[in-house]
Amino acid sequence: MDKKINVGVIGATGMVGQNFIRLLDGHPWFEVTYLAASPNSAGKTYAEAVAGRWHMTTGIPARVRDLAVHDAAAIDEAVGQCRIVFSAVQMDKQGILATEEAYAARGFAVVSNNSAHRTTPDVPMMAPEINHAHLDIIPQQRRQRGWDRGCLVVKPNCSIQSYMLPLHALLKAGYVVDRMIVTTLQAVSGAGYPGVASLDVIDNVVPYIGGEEEKSETEPLKILGTVEGGKITPAEGLKISAHCNRVPVSDGHTACVSLGFAGKKPSRDEIIGLWRDYSSVPQELGLPSAPVPPIIYRDEPDRPQPRTDRDAAGAMAVTVGRLRPCNVFDYRFVGLHHNTVRGAAGGGILAAELLTAKGYLD
Amino acid sequence: MDKKINVGVIGATGMVGQNFIRLLDGHPWFEVTYLAASPNSAGKTYAEAVAGRWHMTTGIPARVRDLAVHDAAAIDEAVGQCRIVFSAVQMDKQGILATEEAYAARGFAVVSNNSAHRTTPDVPMMAPEINHAHLDIIPQQRRQRGWDRGCLVVKPNCSIQSYMLPLHALLKAGYVVDRMIVTTLQAVSGAGYPGVASLDVIDNVVPYIGGEEEKSETEPLKILGTVEGGKITPAEGLKISAHCNRVPVSDGHTACVSLGFAGKKPSRDEIIGLWRDYSSVPQELGLPSAPVPPIIYRDEPDRPQPRTDRDAAGAMAVTVGRLRPCNVFDYRFVGLHHNTVRGAAGGGILAAELLTAKGYLD
Amino acid sequence: MDKKINVGVIGATGMVGQNFIRLLDGHPWFEVTYLAASPNSAGKTYAEAVAGRWHMTTGIPARVRDLAVHDAAAIDEAVGQCRIVFSAVQMDKQGILATEEAYAARGFAVVSNNSAHRTTPDVPMMAPEINHAHLDIIPQQRRQRGWDRGCLVVKPNCSIQSYMLPLHALLKAGYVVDRMIVTTLQAVSGAGYPGVASLDVIDNVVPYIGGEEEKSETEPLKILGTVEGGKITPAEGLKISAHCNRVPVSDGHTACVSLGFAGKKPSRDEIIGLWRDYSSVPQELGLPSAPVPPIIYRDEPDRPQPRTDRDAAGAMAVTVGRLRPCNVFDYRFVGLHHNTVRGAAGGGILAAELLTAKGYLD
Amino acid sequence: MDKKINVGVIGATGMVGQNFIRLLDGHPWFEVTYLAASPNSAGKTYAEAVAGRWHMTTGIPARVRDLAVHDAAAIDEAVGQCRIVFSAVQMDKQGILATEEAYAARGFAVVSNNSAHRTTPDVPMMAPEINHAHLDIIPQQRRQRGWDRGCLVVKPNCSIQSYMLPLHALLKAGYVVDRMIVTTLQAVSGAGYPGVASLDVIDNVVPYIGGEEEKSETEPLKILGTVEGGKITPAEGLKISAHCNRVPVSDGHTACVSLGFAGKKPSRDEIIGLWRDYSSVPQELGLPSAPVPPIIYRDEPDRPQPRTDRDAAGAMAVTVGRLRPCNVFDYRFVGLHHNTVRGAAGGGILAAELLTAKGYLD
Repeated sequence: MDKKINVGVIGATGMVGQNFIRLLDGHPWFEVTYLAASPNSAGKTYAEAVAGRWHMTTGIPARVRDLAVHDAAAIDEAVGQCRIVFSAVQMDKQGILATEEAYAARGFAVVSNNSAHRTTPDVPMMAPEINHAHLDIIPQQRRQRGWDRGCLVVKPNCSIQSYMLPLHALLKAGYVVDRMIVTTLQAVSGAGYPGVASLDVIDNVVPYIGGEEEKSETEPLKILGTVEGGKITPAEGLKISAHCNRVPVSDGHTACVSLGFAGKKPSRDEIIGLWRDYSSVPQELGLPSAPVPPIIYRDEPDRPQPRTDRDAAGAMAVTVGRLRPCNVFDYRFVGLHHNTVRGAAGGGILAAELLTAKGYLD
Repeated sequence: MDKKINVGVIGATGMVGQNFIRLLDGHPWFEVTYLAASPNSAGKTYAEAVAGRWHMTTGIPARVRDLAVHDAAAIDEAVGQCRIVFSAVQMDKQGILATEEAYAARGFAVVSNNSAHRTTPDVPMMAPEINHAHLDIIPQQRRQRGWDRGCLVVKPNCSIQSYMLPLHALLKAGYVVDRMIVTTLQAVSGAGYPGVASLDVIDNVVPYIGGEEEKSETEPLKILGTVEGGKITPAEGLKISAHCNRVPVSDGHTACVSLGFAGKKPSRDEIIGLWRDYSSVPQELGLPSAPVPPIIYRDEPDRPQPRTDRDAAGAMAVTVGRLRPCNVFDYRFVGLHHNTVRGAAGGGILAAELLTAKGYLD
Repeated sequence: MDKKINVGVIGATGMVGQNFIRLLDGHPWFEVTYLAASPNSAGKTYAEAVAGRWHMTTGIPARVRDLAVHDAAAIDEAVGQCRIVFSAVQMDKQGILATEEAYAARGFAVVSNNSAHRTTPDVPMMAPEINHAHLDIIPQQRRQRGWDRGCLVVKPNCSIQSYMLPLHALLKAGYVVDRMIVTTLQAVSGAGYPGVASLDVIDNVVPYIGGEEEKSETEPLKILGTVEGGKITPAEGLKISAHCNRVPVSDGHTACVSLGFAGKKPSRDEIIGLWRDYSSVPQELGLPSAPVPPIIYRDEPDRPQPRTDRDAAGAMAVTVGRLRPCNVFDYRFVGLHHNTVRGAAGGGILAAELLTAKGYLD
Repeated sequence: MDKKINVGVIGATGMVGQNFIRLLDGHPWFEVTYLAASPNSAGKTYAEAVAGRWHMTTGIPARVRDLAVHDAAAIDEAVGQCRIVFSAVQMDKQGILATEEAYAARGFAVVSNNSAHRTTPDVPMMAPEINHAHLDIIPQQRRQRGWDRGCLVVKPNCSIQSYMLPLHALLKAGYVVDRMIVTTLQAVSGAGYPGVASLDVIDNVVPYIGGEEEKSETEPLKILGTVEGGKITPAEGLKISAHCNRVPVSDGHTACVSLGFAGKKPSRDEIIGLWRDYSSVPQELGLPSAPVPPIIYRDEPDRPQPRTDRDAAGAMAVTVGRLRPCNVFDYRFVGLHHNTVRGAAGGGILAAELLTAKGYLD
């Protein structure tokens, strides 16, 4: 890449926006040149706009401190400033739908962290190692919507990565998984800031996260779906049941998974081999944020754990362990990923890298 | 009860022993008159023996501060001092087996918190609301072992109460549950003191507790088993798969449960009704430690939680919530109980009360 | 007391209001008969008004579940419903000043948990064991303000109780303390709900609580002050420097204190004796919420601790320990109290009991 | 440096030893070539020896996985293997004294993390930015002890760095500080592994760490002392009083400091300037582990905090904030440093770099 691609972040002052800015600092392909947020922040420098509410443990990157923050609704100001827009806008669902579409209509490639467009049939929900081919829908998306150079992709919910990559490694090898029961132990950073009240997680667990179980059960089916007729049709034949819990952990979602096969069953050694050998298009294309390897299997009996494994491969890998037979289904295991990197901003950046590498930004 | 029954605690200085002593303080039927521990503690007063390692949040009960601590191996010293012995001795498995049998042989009713005798066929493993009838084996136990007035019962592992009472309410109504997948989020107090290192649970989860999953899967079958031919035959037809995790919670085990029925399925309302109406022999006999009600169903979407629900009904009730359909099995719910009370010492005391009320101590 | 005194809680739906309601449940002298909050809650039952935001670990007391919640601004509705009003209203400072004065003007004895009136010269800030005599100002307060039966007292900030009672025991014995450096480790419940974000206290400490250090330094002087000429004149001659930190603890503020004497210095044994023998008017009058003893000195090297000591004497006692010489001043020690009971609602109730016992409600 | 210097770690399997190995991985000057531990580990590879007890959040460095672990008592085996020995041996005090002297006698430069030799008059206790000149004692140390090429230096306790560097910046500018009252909020990693029991720090604070306060008060005086007559004479005229607490934080010690000057007092701006401009010999020599800058002053009202500041400048900087007048002394502030890096292994490595750069290893 001779010259970096200019990118923008809309909703730049919130927790997810901050994560995008943190992760894009020093990115080899992308350069942050445009920032937008609510009208309250418009006209301030980024440092002014986030004063007193920068929640990353590293400082504000020097390159963005003095960038002007624009009003996210004033799309005209973005024109010519960047090619890709990462969306972390916080609005009601209708506002998000409209804003993201408006940016795409004006020619921006929009990569959204929001859930609003996840069920939109012609919008791919990217887990790049799994459904890289869903980007094939973009020419149709453009045609259907009358967009010229713009496009719109979203990333899935942060709760599912711990089991989606391990699951895909099995499916890719030809095995059929038809049932999964998953219990997640999710970090508080998934709720943003201020998010979860400290009184709710000191010496406590909250066995409920609004809307999370539904997303954890249905989003995998779209990711595993097929592009046909200008839309993505969710996969069938796999039933997932999710129990989602909030635990006193800052970053890193853990998932306890039981799964069953229809038909042929791989041996334990074969599964571990499939996981350790797993690699996909993002790795083959050498995308900067693609973890190598994408799946790490740990042999220790008590791994993965959030503190020790969330940062593996730039916090983009999924770490699994404890693969063992299940008394009810066929196998069970534990998966873990970093929810605000792999599961959110980092996943969005990986999707943008894939868009770039596949030539959709030319 | 005209006069209190004298009871002893062996292994009195450890964490479980301390819990027995805390919970027996002011007990309406039992009076602690005998304490034993390792030779190191023998000859000291109880206050001296636990100086610097009393880990209850309430103080040492005044009545036991000055009681002499005996050597647990010197059973002669116990003779005449008490009728019931609560065992929390910490030894290798052979040592526990031998010690507990020796006390029973000398005429004591032994109620053990240890796992050593849980698989012994003629030793009932008591969850009093469920298998109160297993005490019927005691005459046979005495006959088989040549014990006169002594007997031996154990309590099950602390991980299972959150789902065993809710399960039993369904079975008692005639429904057949044939599969359960359970993920537990277990408190650190279950590992005793010092137990879990703080570095392992600050900002972390440990997805492994040695031996816990096996106990969580097999002990329920013995509890649901039948007494025949001088032994307890485990139930068949129910498969349980358990994922056991350690979380940063002091007290209170949470379980996320998915279950499936063979044959007829109750409605959601019917299940909640069965739980709310659940009552059993301990409640009917008015045992002092029997929670009323034994099962509490909470309607709030985010309950039960350890901080708010572990102390329900003297920390002896099981609190359940979030009953909802399961995408893979029939239903799923969340259960919670206090692991060191309902799940350990309190459960042992309830078993001793049942032994008393049923006349096995006469 | 033949008949209970009717009391009201205004600001009843917030965290402090909930604590008042929790602590007043079963109170031997007071009966909650009136509840008020913001217009949003007016017209609902209390159970409806706090649905989804009841944050006590015990349930809503049965007696108040169905009480109607009134608009706190509609004082007419309170007339005839109660004699004492506990104020936990959440407004800006002017709003609180006006609301509390309006209730007092209408004849209610107002006991406030808010800080707004703490610096008002004719409003006593009650630490009942210390400045019980400050209630002598009430006749003057009534005269000055033209109030007939109404009156207004406040309780101090939750950060100071851990050192104020131990300090008072020394002053009462005639010793002069002229300098104190105090570092507090404060629980998150002091910030209400949702209060402190979980991301700020998981694996972290926040060395700053807005406004807390100033209150911790100046409020003690008013409490130790003297009533003269219709106002309370703060004490002089004692300098306090406070460092206030937020730590990952749910309830219980810890204070590390170094203090120096002007003139005669007591011995370590004498200080411990003064603390253990400390008693005051609330104890002599047998007030229901008065802890007996008010100060507990623990000999163990590692006490007091929040988990083990916050609930001492109904969570109303102050526990101290580690009295030892200070290399720079004369002595140092650690103090601890329950911030939402002794330090907030419980302290307010104790003040109301004192008002009652001293005849100011007749 | 043309060629790396071979270094050894004795006590390599414990928590501090693991930290040495982690921090030495990829070090530009040093290469780990020798490992020793207790006889239990001798003969194993390092990976075997720490199997199941490697507690770093990053993996075992590849270069040391297969290194043989020697018996720390078999010094002969070390001869020729390395020039510097980092000591983290865990023995009683006499054992440590003897072992470390034996290595020095055999020609090794010993840099110890242990406290045993901290009060030995001819052993410098290095805080390299402050007392770099104490290494001048090494020729005398060698002469007095008949050591040829060997020498022995120690690093101070992990509790003092948060205030020693900020203090030194003031002393270096000619101001005289004569009194400090310090309250520390210390991370659990300071106690090693398993160290602090999780039951002691979930929802809790322990206001006591055995021996820590004495070290925090006396070690600064030796560091600020002078080399004369073959020994280091502690400084006089500064009195320190320390309150040491354990809090639920994994890494990062926080200190709340009040200090007073004798004579001239700098202004607040001047102090901040002195801190921000602070630099010393390690920075001038460009030592690889020397933080640049060594002191970071943060303007935000709520900093420093463990999560956000412990890793500053490779976890070797001290971060300070909240400088403000003290009501009792002159100023107060908050300091923070990473206890297992700056305060332990990293500090030892910095001392070894200084030894190297000053030519004591030639």
